[in-house]
Amino acid sequence: MRVSVLGGDKRMLYCAKAFEKDGYDITLSGFDRLQSDCGIRITDPYSAVITADIIVLPLFPLAGEYLNMPFSKEKVRFESFERLAGERTVFCGMSDMLPKNTLDLFDYSKREDYLIRNAYLTAEGAVYCAMTESFHSLKGAKILILGYGRIAKLLSEILLALHADVTVAARKASDRAWIGERGMKATDFSFKEYYEYDVIFNTVPALVLDQNALDHISDNALIIDLASKSGGVDYAYAKERGILALHMLSLPAKYAPETAGEIIEETIMNILEEA
Amino acid sequence: MRVSVLGGDKRMLYCAKAFEKDGYDITLSGFDRLQSDCGIRITDPYSAVITADIIVLPLFPLAGEYLNMPFSKEKVRFESFERLAGERTVFCGMSDMLPKNTLDLFDYSKREDYLIRNAYLTAEGAVYCAMTESFHSLKGAKILILGYGRIAKLLSEILLALHADVTVAARKASDRAWIGERGMKATDFSFKEYYEYDVIFNTVPALVLDQNALDHISDNALIIDLASKSGGVDYAYAKERGILALHMLSLPAKYAPETAGEIIEETIMNILEEA
Amino acid sequence: MRVSVLGGDKRMLYCAKAFEKDGYDITLSGFDRLQSDCGIRITDPYSAVITADIIVLPLFPLAGEYLNMPFSKEKVRFESFERLAGERTVFCGMSDMLPKNTLDLFDYSKREDYLIRNAYLTAEGAVYCAMTESFHSLKGAKILILGYGRIAKLLSEILLALHADVTVAARKASDRAWIGERGMKATDFSFKEYYEYDVIFNTVPALVLDQNALDHISDNALIIDLASKSGGVDYAYAKERGILALHMLSLPAKYAPETAGEIIEETIMNILEEA
Amino acid sequence: MRVSVLGGDKRMLYCAKAFEKDGYDITLSGFDRLQSDCGIRITDPYSAVITADIIVLPLFPLAGEYLNMPFSKEKVRFESFERLAGERTVFCGMSDMLPKNTLDLFDYSKREDYLIRNAYLTAEGAVYCAMTESFHSLKGAKILILGYGRIAKLLSEILLALHADVTVAARKASDRAWIGERGMKATDFSFKEYYEYDVIFNTVPALVLDQNALDHISDNALIIDLASKSGGVDYAYAKERGILALHMLSLPAKYAPETAGEIIEETIMNILEEA
Repeated sequence: MRVSVLGGDKRMLYCAKAFEKDGYDITLSGFDRLQSDCGIRITDPYSAVITADIIVLPLFPLAGEYLNMPFSKEKVRFESFERLAGERTVFCGMSDMLPKNTLDLFDYSKREDYLIRNAYLTAEGAVYCAMTESFHSLKGAKILILGYGRIAKLLSEILLALHADVTVAARKASDRAWIGERGMKATDFSFKEYYEYDVIFNTVPALVLDQNALDHISDNALIIDLASKSGGVDYAYAKERGILALHMLSLPAKYAPETAGEIIEETIMNILEEA
Repeated sequence: MRVSVLGGDKRMLYCAKAFEKDGYDITLSGFDRLQSDCGIRITDPYSAVITADIIVLPLFPLAGEYLNMPFSKEKVRFESFERLAGERTVFCGMSDMLPKNTLDLFDYSKREDYLIRNAYLTAEGAVYCAMTESFHSLKGAKILILGYGRIAKLLSEILLALHADVTVAARKASDRAWIGERGMKATDFSFKEYYEYDVIFNTVPALVLDQNALDHISDNALIIDLASKSGGVDYAYAKERGILALHMLSLPAKYAPETAGEIIEETIMNILEEA
Repeated sequence: MRVSVLGGDKRMLYCAKAFEKDGYDITLSGFDRLQSDCGIRITDPYSAVITADIIVLPLFPLAGEYLNMPFSKEKVRFESFERLAGERTVFCGMSDMLPKNTLDLFDYSKREDYLIRNAYLTAEGAVYCAMTESFHSLKGAKILILGYGRIAKLLSEILLALHADVTVAARKASDRAWIGERGMKATDFSFKEYYEYDVIFNTVPALVLDQNALDHISDNALIIDLASKSGGVDYAYAKERGILALHMLSLPAKYAPETAGEIIEETIMNILEEA
Repeated sequence: MRVSVLGGDKRMLYCAKAFEKDGYDITLSGFDRLQSDCGIRITDPYSAVITADIIVLPLFPLAGEYLNMPFSKEKVRFESFERLAGERTVFCGMSDMLPKNTLDLFDYSKREDYLIRNAYLTAEGAVYCAMTESFHSLKGAKILILGYGRIAKLLSEILLALHADVTVAARKASDRAWIGERGMKATDFSFKEYYEYDVIFNTVPALVLDQNALDHISDNALIIDLASKSGGVDYAYAKERGILALHMLSLPAKYAPETAGEIIEETIMNILEEA
């Protein structure tokens, strides 16, 4: 089977390499501005599409009306791509972004296995952020994690393994039971205890760290906000208070593009196997 | 508030102690055959009920038509208890076992927080079983866990921490993603690889280890079946093959009655807090 | 090379199996009273010695003037063995126990690699003892370890991995630094804090838990004494006080004879490689 | 007791803060060029010395003939300091660097507890370097650590906790036994297997990664050299081969100056307690 990876950032380069490692006949397109030789055959988008059985588009497939190809000089309208692709199998992320179309489309970004593996990269990347910004070791640091979804679960397990002093805030009693059974401290969102923490990670996509909450946080604390969209921190007030609060988005791509690309490939492989 | 703990096994003794530690005025009943002094006021069941604000029955509340009181010479019909209890708050487990009644009843055994914490005890107890039965150290042992529910999650994390070589079999790709991100090997239920494992833990309440599967297991392997009801092993065939297969039920009560009792108390406290 | 394993307990059976697995031509002797077929050629001691290039004696090689062969009806005087063995290479443990002799002897039991690996088995076995004797889960248990030698190092790491609350008592400031950097609490031998611990492991071969110390221990505490020889506990006084104190010796052989036997084989392999 | 902290980098600022937290009357000197208010009384060096009972100099106490005060406009000759200090107790690091003198001097940098705690910071900092430089997650990364001294012990334990695939190379069979019992793979320095590793940490202060060894390393590998002085890598050849090799020195000060300063304070406290 011939696979063409089309556009996107560095992740897609590693995604293509992963396909090649697994024995696929692979073509990479939309990377003509890359300086160094990446060891994979690079062609123009049109031949890439025509010669492929399977086409892989990036996590964010569009830039306006065009395919998202930041490393290319060429511009391909989505409409043209659609016509060219015809009945070929197309994989992409965030398919809600696409206009109505007749493509034979699979969205890898909605799958639980993709989200879980990506959450791990976000978690390791968040640990990296804390290491970058704080002046003390993570071992022994007093850490609060807000929320207990995918990212928070994996983040808390990493930090515990690094011998940090980990507390997780969760609303549900059952989540607090999980947290306790995994050897960490559980709390609900009682901001009155916020003062004692060195690092606070937020994973809740709502304004959890509002003025009231921030008033209970130490000036020396570091806030790392992993919540999508507009985040969970009143950034203006945090700045006023002199508290360092960082909104970290797209950590997998920034922190570990190689693994992020491999995860896309492996998710597509899972989809193909299940089909 | 006056709490009466009424009947049950050793767990309920420790449950009563936990209430006492938390400052409650506590009465224990149904333990008149206990030899040693447990340090808690023991009364007859009738005064225990009449003087209480809250009554706590054991996980299995009934033995036939009577309250389940294995450590007592007295016998109390459930009907009599119902009348006596009147509008008092009653906590018990497995309330499906009870006949229709007018009690103000809360079932602690259905709650997620109870189930999760109990699952941890089952998991630690299952590790203890493997230590008891096998002749080699858990470190380095090749271990397969079938299923990835509550018990399997916690069991796999304990075994990994003990540096066992852990593989978990799960049907869902998303579960296999979790397993992989937590540093373990994931597989589906492909019994063809069963041969290489030293210890196999089953948590799936279905006949997973049937004749076909058992034919792929080493004679020296140890099977620990944690699935409820009739378990997940063809025991007759395992015996015929000379494979040691143990069906371990009620591990929390057997392995750690003190903690098991404390969990009941803490679950009741959570229910009271949320009310 | 032909290897004969001669006498000893179950460990030596597994030691013989390990040699066989590694491709050696192996003979087992001194196990004629074994009921079940162990799958290894069993001969009388005399032919075993005569036909061997390498002879392996057990950890405790002697029982009086005879070779230590508890699973055999035969009796072999050490003197006869010495004459018979001649210039063959002989491996044994505890060679100080042997009378003066002319054997070409290597003692595996003095080597650091043997002692370290055996210490791990002792540690895992000690965890098993605590699981057997206590009524609560190890997770969350307050544990004190006295000493920070081989066994204590590994024991503390296992218990920490099981999410116990671990404190280690060590005299040297450098040991206390190691303990702290490994995520545990360090203390010196200040028995005034003994009261708060659920389980106390002693690894110091001296009377550490004397009357004075025992007076500061809770009645419900469990003491597991791993110190060799006469141990580190005033047992008479512990009994008087009603404190459960267990002196656990030879844990590797009792807890995990298979791994204990493999360790002997691997140590001998290391000696052969270095020679 | 009045303590004056005199000169050095950011670590000494945090060292001073730690003394203050512990209730000491503290003066900081040699930080007059600091822009922000650090919350501690800052004086000129002369009054700092005269008013102190205890004087703390930095890890590297000298810059030529002067005290090492990079954050100060003032210059204090060591000779003048010696006369001024008189019989006051002086703590410093690297005392071999000092000319012969009559000071009542204690060197904290030679103590095992200091070296161990500092080694942990180096290890956590080395993990941070690997995270910075590599494009994949540490989980699952194939990692080789050369040597098994203080830093390597702690580094290997951190990486294992992060679910990396850790191999440690050590010459002594006893070290390899420790490595194995701690759940990692042990090897000797057989560079023929170097090819398979993603990240190689060197802790051996000798030319371990010479041309011969580098020829067996993958082009994509990352080398982080933690060996003091001139390191353990043929850097010219690594560059020629296009292998990224980083010589990371003074990681504690760079990665976590706050904790590094606290460690100096705690070591001095240990010295005072033992005196």
